[in-house]
Amino acid sequence: MVPRGMSNQGGITYVKTGIKGVDTILDGKGFPKGWSVLVLGAPGSGKTIFSLQFLKEGVEMGENGVYVSLDEDPERLLQNARQMGVDLAKPIKDGKIAIVDASPIRLLPAKIKLGGAEVGGKEFALATLVTSMTEAVKKTDASRLVVDPISTLILHFGQEYERRIAFLDLIAAAAKTRCTSLFLSEMNDAQLQRSHLFEEFLTQGVIVMSKILAGSTFSRVFSVEKMRGIAHDTQPHPYRIAEGGVEVFPAEQIF
Amino acid sequence: MVPRGMSNQGGITYVKTGIKGVDTILDGKGFPKGWSVLVLGAPGSGKTIFSLQFLKEGVEMGENGVYVSLDEDPERLLQNARQMGVDLAKPIKDGKIAIVDASPIRLLPAKIKLGGAEVGGKEFALATLVTSMTEAVKKTDASRLVVDPISTLILHFGQEYERRIAFLDLIAAAAKTRCTSLFLSEMNDAQLQRSHLFEEFLTQGVIVMSKILAGSTFSRVFSVEKMRGIAHDTQPHPYRIAEGGVEVFPAEQIF
Amino acid sequence: MVPRGMSNQGGITYVKTGIKGVDTILDGKGFPKGWSVLVLGAPGSGKTIFSLQFLKEGVEMGENGVYVSLDEDPERLLQNARQMGVDLAKPIKDGKIAIVDASPIRLLPAKIKLGGAEVGGKEFALATLVTSMTEAVKKTDASRLVVDPISTLILHFGQEYERRIAFLDLIAAAAKTRCTSLFLSEMNDAQLQRSHLFEEFLTQGVIVMSKILAGSTFSRVFSVEKMRGIAHDTQPHPYRIAEGGVEVFPAEQIF
Amino acid sequence: MVPRGMSNQGGITYVKTGIKGVDTILDGKGFPKGWSVLVLGAPGSGKTIFSLQFLKEGVEMGENGVYVSLDEDPERLLQNARQMGVDLAKPIKDGKIAIVDASPIRLLPAKIKLGGAEVGGKEFALATLVTSMTEAVKKTDASRLVVDPISTLILHFGQEYERRIAFLDLIAAAAKTRCTSLFLSEMNDAQLQRSHLFEEFLTQGVIVMSKILAGSTFSRVFSVEKMRGIAHDTQPHPYRIAEGGVEVFPAEQIF
Amino acid sequence: MVPRGMSNQGGITYVKTGIKGVDTILDGKGFPKGWSVLVLGAPGSGKTIFSLQFLKEGVEMGENGVYVSLDEDPERLLQNARQMGVDLAKPIKDGKIAIVDASPIRLLPAKIKLGGAEVGGKEFALATLVTSMTEAVKKTDASRLVVDPISTLILHFGQEYERRIAFLDLIAAAAKTRCTSLFLSEMNDAQLQRSHLFEEFLTQGVIVMSKILAGSTFSRVFSVEKMRGIAHDTQPHPYRIAEGGVEVFPAEQIF
Amino acid sequence: MVPRGMSNQGGITYVKTGIKGVDTILDGKGFPKGWSVLVLGAPGSGKTIFSLQFLKEGVEMGENGVYVSLDEDPERLLQNARQMGVDLAKPIKDGKIAIVDASPIRLLPAKIKLGGAEVGGKEFALATLVTSMTEAVKKTDASRLVVDPISTLILHFGQEYERRIAFLDLIAAAAKTRCTSLFLSEMNDAQLQRSHLFEEFLTQGVIVMSKILAGSTFSRVFSVEKMRGIAHDTQPHPYRIAEGGVEVFPAEQIF
Repeated sequence: MVPRGMSNQGGITYVKTGIKGVDTILDGKGFPKGWSVLVLGAPGSGKTIFSLQFLKEGVEMGENGVYVSLDEDPERLLQNARQMGVDLAKPIKDGKIAIVDASPIRLLPAKIKLGGAEVGGKEFALATLVTSMTEAVKKTDASRLVVDPISTLILHFGQEYERRIAFLDLIAAAAKTRCTSLFLSEMNDAQLQRSHLFEEFLTQGVIVMSKILAGSTFSRVFSVEKMRGIAHDTQPHPYRIAEGGVEVFPAEQIF
Repeated sequence: MVPRGMSNQGGITYVKTGIKGVDTILDGKGFPKGWSVLVLGAPGSGKTIFSLQFLKEGVEMGENGVYVSLDEDPERLLQNARQMGVDLAKPIKDGKIAIVDASPIRLLPAKIKLGGAEVGGKEFALATLVTSMTEAVKKTDASRLVVDPISTLILHFGQEYERRIAFLDLIAAAAKTRCTSLFLSEMNDAQLQRSHLFEEFLTQGVIVMSKILAGSTFSRVFSVEKMRGIAHDTQPHPYRIAEGGVEVFPAEQIF
Repeated sequence: MVPRGMSNQGGITYVKTGIKGVDTILDGKGFPKGWSVLVLGAPGSGKTIFSLQFLKEGVEMGENGVYVSLDEDPERLLQNARQMGVDLAKPIKDGKIAIVDASPIRLLPAKIKLGGAEVGGKEFALATLVTSMTEAVKKTDASRLVVDPISTLILHFGQEYERRIAFLDLIAAAAKTRCTSLFLSEMNDAQLQRSHLFEEFLTQGVIVMSKILAGSTFSRVFSVEKMRGIAHDTQPHPYRIAEGGVEVFPAEQIF
Repeated sequence: MVPRGMSNQGGITYVKTGIKGVDTILDGKGFPKGWSVLVLGAPGSGKTIFSLQFLKEGVEMGENGVYVSLDEDPERLLQNARQMGVDLAKPIKDGKIAIVDASPIRLLPAKIKLGGAEVGGKEFALATLVTSMTEAVKKTDASRLVVDPISTLILHFGQEYERRIAFLDLIAAAAKTRCTSLFLSEMNDAQLQRSHLFEEFLTQGVIVMSKILAGSTFSRVFSVEKMRGIAHDTQPHPYRIAEGGVEVFPAEQIF
Repeated sequence: MVPRGMSNQGGITYVKTGIKGVDTILDGKGFPKGWSVLVLGAPGSGKTIFSLQFLKEGVEMGENGVYVSLDEDPERLLQNARQMGVDLAKPIKDGKIAIVDASPIRLLPAKIKLGGAEVGGKEFALATLVTSMTEAVKKTDASRLVVDPISTLILHFGQEYERRIAFLDLIAAAAKTRCTSLFLSEMNDAQLQRSHLFEEFLTQGVIVMSKILAGSTFSRVFSVEKMRGIAHDTQPHPYRIAEGGVEVFPAEQIF
Repeated sequence: MVPRGMSNQGGITYVKTGIKGVDTILDGKGFPKGWSVLVLGAPGSGKTIFSLQFLKEGVEMGENGVYVSLDEDPERLLQNARQMGVDLAKPIKDGKIAIVDASPIRLLPAKIKLGGAEVGGKEFALATLVTSMTEAVKKTDASRLVVDPISTLILHFGQEYERRIAFLDLIAAAAKTRCTSLFLSEMNDAQLQRSHLFEEFLTQGVIVMSKILAGSTFSRVFSVEKMRGIAHDTQPHPYRIAEGGVEVFPAEQIF
């Protein structure tokens, strides 16, 4: 029997996100299981709450999850989520969701001595993150993984070439865990017609949560810009952040 | 009993700013207590006077405050504020507001000798700032903190990666003081549809005070672009700087 | 007798792509045999599936093919293609299409020791790629070649001058195999009126698969921007990604 | 008794500029005494003649002045000003205005030997400028100071961080002289909606003199973009350069 | 007697290009003999075929020619040109057109040992090119010269200053051969209103072949942007690439 | 008696350019004698012919001239000018105009040995140029000076700071010769509303000769953007390049 929220077609298993409106856009199926999806968002766009909803809904469908926080103290994030009606206290207590505070990674020095050899701080940071997230997934028996955000870690690498390699390594590590993974990242551009980032070419899926100016009014806009293996809706749609978190309106146009 | 200007909901305490029109935009609640808020402003936008009003209103609600001035002689700022009807002389005399002149930090050399070791000037500047502000908060028993501006300090760090880390460290230090904190910064862009700065992704809240050109007329525009844990008004609204300082008009459209 | 899907005119042999709508745009002829064609695409534009269709159609016309994957695990790509109705399992099993997983190239260190001498990692990566693809072509007796994508490899070279040289070397190596070759690359720009990339000047053909915003709606747009030796249609046309892969509509205007 | 052209309100003393139309824009008051004001202008915008008018009007109100020329031979500037009807010959002869030719500063070598130690040329240039202007102010008993322009000196410092520090040091030195000071600088942007420069955040006031294109006609536009402590007119107004120098039309719109 | 296709006026000799529509734009005269002309083009704009037509027409007017290929195997180019009806086989066989394959220049190492001294690879590349083209001109007794393209060679020089010097040296060498010379280069910009490149200031003539978007349709546009010594038509005109090569329509507007 | 073409007002002497339409724009007066004027132009804008007209008209008014050519062989320029009806043969033969070929300056090495010391090539280039032009002025007893173009020389200096200093030194040297001087430079921008270059802030006058796109038609546009000491026409006007050289139409609007 296929577990609740999952479907299978042509050899690919799909997992529903459970987030209002999102699965409709994803052809009614959700994400292909095991895919890496980039979630790009403006400041205050709700990408963190979106990723926590993804984990919470996972638990309700029988999938455990791991949330890795890289920049911020996770306590604050959870408190904020609870405030928006996304309460993870119980699944965390039940060991169904693990929170990994990886923010101390930024305290690593530029050069690290391991035995007689010296390692670069950024390579070590990446390796540490990969180890932490892999172990947390194993321990929690998780099928969903969130890394929030990848920005600081990736920027640690100076050249675009190195950044690509670092991100490819991170994606490969996530793929090995067999989790469906969300990588959160920052979007500086504030227009629908924006330049693409290299990260968008390297993941199997790309979701954009932006705030667009029409006249003198800002509107929240959600779009699935890329999702391999799904004939998804490619158009932008409005969304809101309210009690219960993010809700997308797949039947509405943005303007 | 909840002190005046505070409210409590779902485990989060909110503190009113007391500034005309601002709390209305913040869902009638004000800032979540202990949050770090970035205040971005154009030159002459009144972000300094806004932050001084925040401290003054705090005192009237029973919250002491600390103002850290990084670029300018604070005497001038206070004189200017008094001129605009925001007089901090009494609360300063009463020890309810402490003014920290951190502008000498810019006189630090690039390399500093401490005992036998050598420390980078910028790391030392950041550490000095953290120490000064932490001690001032302790001494004043403050619940509100303003750092004005963060620009020069952050730019001291050459790479975007280092700047992010420096700002994350500063936010973490402010969070430890348990103060509700405003970090003032410069906004070079003069359009509503602007590129986002990395600082906006790292704080819990973002307020923008800009001057927008419509035809050949400039208008002052206030917007809360991000505030975690509050279903705030996301639209831009007009504001003015007049006797008594900044006043926002939440019921008006900008054009 | 000319094989199926090929034609000959003025000393040049043409090979049909077999992809719906594409040969019509190419003056009914397809690609000049042995040409190197750059395929530029936005994230999620379907350039990978397009290139796999090109190989699959080749097999049906009697031309074997080689697919070189540089960033991603090819297993995932094939699974995704199968999902879209482009199943390469049989031709792979029959030895008519070879899949080369060149993604380990990114694990190469910056400096490599060969005997007593030291070689740069990027030069070695390029040489390794050339050797792998040449051998795979020989072994498969292939006439069609896909390199997906060239982006990371090329970015490995720091200066534009070096990137040009590296790409010219790659094109020369592909030309030596006598294959008709597709080089896939990333397009960051999201407008019809975009700046040209240096790669476009170095190949004999350029195909662009983009996603253009008209009002608040995204449209998929296919255009042959350059194809030496063919009086091709130079206008943009709509396309879709559906069951069976990419399909272009040469008789329709984009808006 | 308050001297002619001065007023006092809430502890701040104001000094009228005396330039036609400008004091009206400054709430009828002029500049707060002792403030540092940045005057940004396009090439040919008349910012130099504006600053010389400021000094000449000062003398008529009993305030002596100092003009520091950094890029150009001041003889030429004075000749040009005389030509436009702004003749400083008499006040210079009477010792009421001092002209400091600081243009030799650019002849300083990159490294300077002082005794056994070596000093950077740019630090020495800044220190020399500060000494020259301070001494000239003392000797002339001046209350008004002009530095024209700051551009070359500031650009001498390579990093934005260093430039900020250098400019902050210059402003602090000017503040110590207790003069009302104008710092002239170059504005490369030719649009009303322009990016802000860091210098604008560091002075108490910002005046912009630009030339804006409307259709195929250029118009001269004057605006006070920032003036702490004054509820000034924030809108752009037309101005002209004619016999007698700059004249602003505060009652007119630019188009 | 003046040879066919040439005219003489005021001491300057003019040579007709012979390309349909082009001489009309050039005041009916063609190029001033011995001039260096920059031909800028988008990818697929037909600048190579244009330059080959220039050589072929030269032969028919009694002027031999040299074509120097820097990036590509010239065999392919000639095959492509033949396909478009520009067949150079006979004049090449007759020794009236020489083809120089200078593409191996890119294989030069960064440092070259000559005797005991070391020479930079780029300086050597430039010198090699100059020697090859000068010798080929002498041997063919050529009056027309094409260098296609200059882009990679020029980019080899890191600083704009060095690039200018390198290009000036190349132009001077071409001038010494007394040939009328075309230098082909890449144009990345895709708008009529584009920024000018430094190369345009250094040659006596500039021709632009671009592809401009009007609505959703691309049009080919030809313009002579600079031609010293000729009162040429300065407006853009449509052109096409068809059987026989490039054809310009001097009597038509682009839209 | 004031010589022909000169006038005197308020201590400043003015010299007419003699170029059709230009003196009208300059308030009927011409340039202030001894001023340094920057002439910015697009490729093919005729700035060289304009400067040669300035010298030729000077001779007719009794002022000798010096033309310094930095990038190009002056023979070609003179031939081209003659072709456009600006023939300098006689004044050159009569010793009234001197042509200085300074193009060999670009052959200077990066480091030059003078006795035991080593000098930078760029500093030497600037010093050589200053010496050549000063001597030529002395020998010709010239009152008009043209340096065409300053671009390559200035770009030789890496930092903007160094470029400013170099240009200030060049202007100072020209001022010492007491000549009215034109410095020709390249303008890459092709819009009326363009960013200003630092050179425009350092000369007493700025003339712009551009080619502006209106719809699909290019128009030649002449404007005096800055001229200290003259109440000049600040608006853009059309001009043409015809028999006799540049002619400006001060009574016409550009569109």
